[in-house]
Amino acid sequence: MAKKSYKSMDEFANACGVSRPTLSKYFHDPSNVKEVTRKRIEAALKKSNFEPNLFARHLNRKRTRNIGVLVPTISDPFYVQVVTLIELELRARGYWPIQISSHTRPDLEEEAIRTLLALKVAGAIVAPLGAGSQASTLQRLTDTIPVVCFDSPASFDLPYVGNDNAQSVAAMVQYLCRSGEPPVFLEIPQVNENSGERQESYRATMLKEGHEPLVIDCETPASWEFERLGFEQMQTILKRDGLPGRTLFCANDRFAFGAMAAAFAAGLKIGRGEGCDVRIAGHDDHPLSRYTCPPLTTMAQNAAAIAATSVEILLRRIDDLDEGRPMQDDKVILEATLVMRESA
Amino acid sequence: MAKKSYKSMDEFANACGVSRPTLSKYFHDPSNVKEVTRKRIEAALKKSNFEPNLFARHLNRKRTRNIGVLVPTISDPFYVQVVTLIELELRARGYWPIQISSHTRPDLEEEAIRTLLALKVAGAIVAPLGAGSQASTLQRLTDTIPVVCFDSPASFDLPYVGNDNAQSVAAMVQYLCRSGEPPVFLEIPQVNENSGERQESYRATMLKEGHEPLVIDCETPASWEFERLGFEQMQTILKRDGLPGRTLFCANDRFAFGAMAAAFAAGLKIGRGEGCDVRIAGHDDHPLSRYTCPPLTTMAQNAAAIAATSVEILLRRIDDLDEGRPMQDDKVILEATLVMRESA
Repeated sequence: MAKKSYKSMDEFANACGVSRPTLSKYFHDPSNVKEVTRKRIEAALKKSNFEPNLFARHLNRKRTRNIGVLVPTISDPFYVQVVTLIELELRARGYWPIQISSHTRPDLEEEAIRTLLALKVAGAIVAPLGAGSQASTLQRLTDTIPVVCFDSPASFDLPYVGNDNAQSVAAMVQYLCRSGEPPVFLEIPQVNENSGERQESYRATMLKEGHEPLVIDCETPASWEFERLGFEQMQTILKRDGLPGRTLFCANDRFAFGAMAAAFAAGLKIGRGEGCDVRIAGHDDHPLSRYTCPPLTTMAQNAAAIAATSVEILLRRIDDLDEGRPMQDDKVILEATLVMRESA
Repeated sequence: MAKKSYKSMDEFANACGVSRPTLSKYFHDPSNVKEVTRKRIEAALKKSNFEPNLFARHLNRKRTRNIGVLVPTISDPFYVQVVTLIELELRARGYWPIQISSHTRPDLEEEAIRTLLALKVAGAIVAPLGAGSQASTLQRLTDTIPVVCFDSPASFDLPYVGNDNAQSVAAMVQYLCRSGEPPVFLEIPQVNENSGERQESYRATMLKEGHEPLVIDCETPASWEFERLGFEQMQTILKRDGLPGRTLFCANDRFAFGAMAAAFAAGLKIGRGEGCDVRIAGHDDHPLSRYTCPPLTTMAQNAAAIAATSVEILLRRIDDLDEGRPMQDDKVILEATLVMRESA
């Protein structure tokens, strides 16, 4: 069946049997119009090729209903998990997420922010690159639109939703200490604030438990390819000195994947059962961690709450801006949950 | 250092010491202006808060330099790998990718296409949802702008870049047959054209090699959570009948991950060495496949060529449209490479 074409909003409003302002209201926010009107417009949309020209519409409005979602990389299953939840939540609330990845490169993060500003997004949810970020670029974004950071707080004061690294790392260290040999900490490169916080909590908790902390820094040049780094670091450790202990706590799950693969390749048996050579634990509980061999013991970040809270705060701040209300200082730190599996 | 603000393109062109048309040319495509001019504009941009209003600019032009990239899900490492390569290539060539995921839902795929059309993207690279796609929605996109499909061809005639499933599956079956027991094929749900093509090639190659094909269909309701499906299917198989053979060929790597995890949990030793119980192979060589325990033997799709060719064809078609040239019928099918690792 050929679909009808319309040349303008007026023509399409006529065809729907609604007024032009009502149609605009609908496109601004479907929940702005009565249920019966909404259904009438949507039935007409289905039968037509009508596309309101977003560029034209947005010129007449303070802002769009697009929301930028910026992360360092979508090659990281943890970011993918949170971004997916953020996108579904935004769509359910009538906003359109525009996801941009900086591919872990500061120049592309800067370009991504420029693009988001040029697209006049109403707000942005950002996991900053961290150590590599240009503070001035992020400042420019936050000077212009409401922004919420997640995963890694920016260096200056912004609303932030993140994991309680002090709590989560302490919980894992305590669990490992009471169930076997105290853990050695395998550090990742310091790409953002998380690594520092996690190492600090590891050291403090080990001392509190009466053990000497032992941190092994990652020797491969910094990168976000954590599986490869974990694999190479474990190979180096095994070749040079052998296992530094019978329990290894990796700073994140992706690093643990690589470390497990290298230990397995060296003929070591990983796990907490009889006859195992080494226990390996991670941090994050990303979606594949339950499918490693053996399944990975880890701290599950509360991805659902991180996503929901980020959206909640951002939309509230957009409203506050619209209504001229002062914005609150939002910082939400969420506890993680110990997930005991076979690896440790 | 406070950055300078400009109110219009004219004001900013003055500050750069270039003419307004030259500045427009630069924003249209930086390679349009002389190297020395480009540097002058970029130095001024760095010191300013100037953002050309994309919405305003695009009203005066036939189209934007934005390119839509639409995939079923970014929870699939294969899509992430190709999307990342596509985005980097587009950015390197002066285009801005806008990535949207349909989260494997037909209603969101339809909404994503509506969004891309409303944003007036110059073209789109699409991995269609497949079985769940609304043909009419995709048709609407392809009626309006140049589109290239990858991974899964749409049901009607469009430029397409994909894997040669006949070749890749035959290569794996032949390898498995000559190195041990002929493989049993573990099928995934038929979410798109790939599964049918792969199963067909498995059956044909087995017969050609003189063996009876054996396909085990996935019994869990269709979904894109392949790791979970593989895990549950393997559990079901082991509980009901035990291993159907000593070599299992999974229709993709993600399904193989789950199958390996269930086999491991049941105490089976996976691999091609002495004393192993079962060989498991996959298809795709997604980025984590080298880090499973044992590392996964698989067919590596040529992700780099899939990404580069998709971008190449799309940009050529956009140019053809600009110049009024007839478009060629582009279909590029790329061979995959056998990656022998420890699992099979």
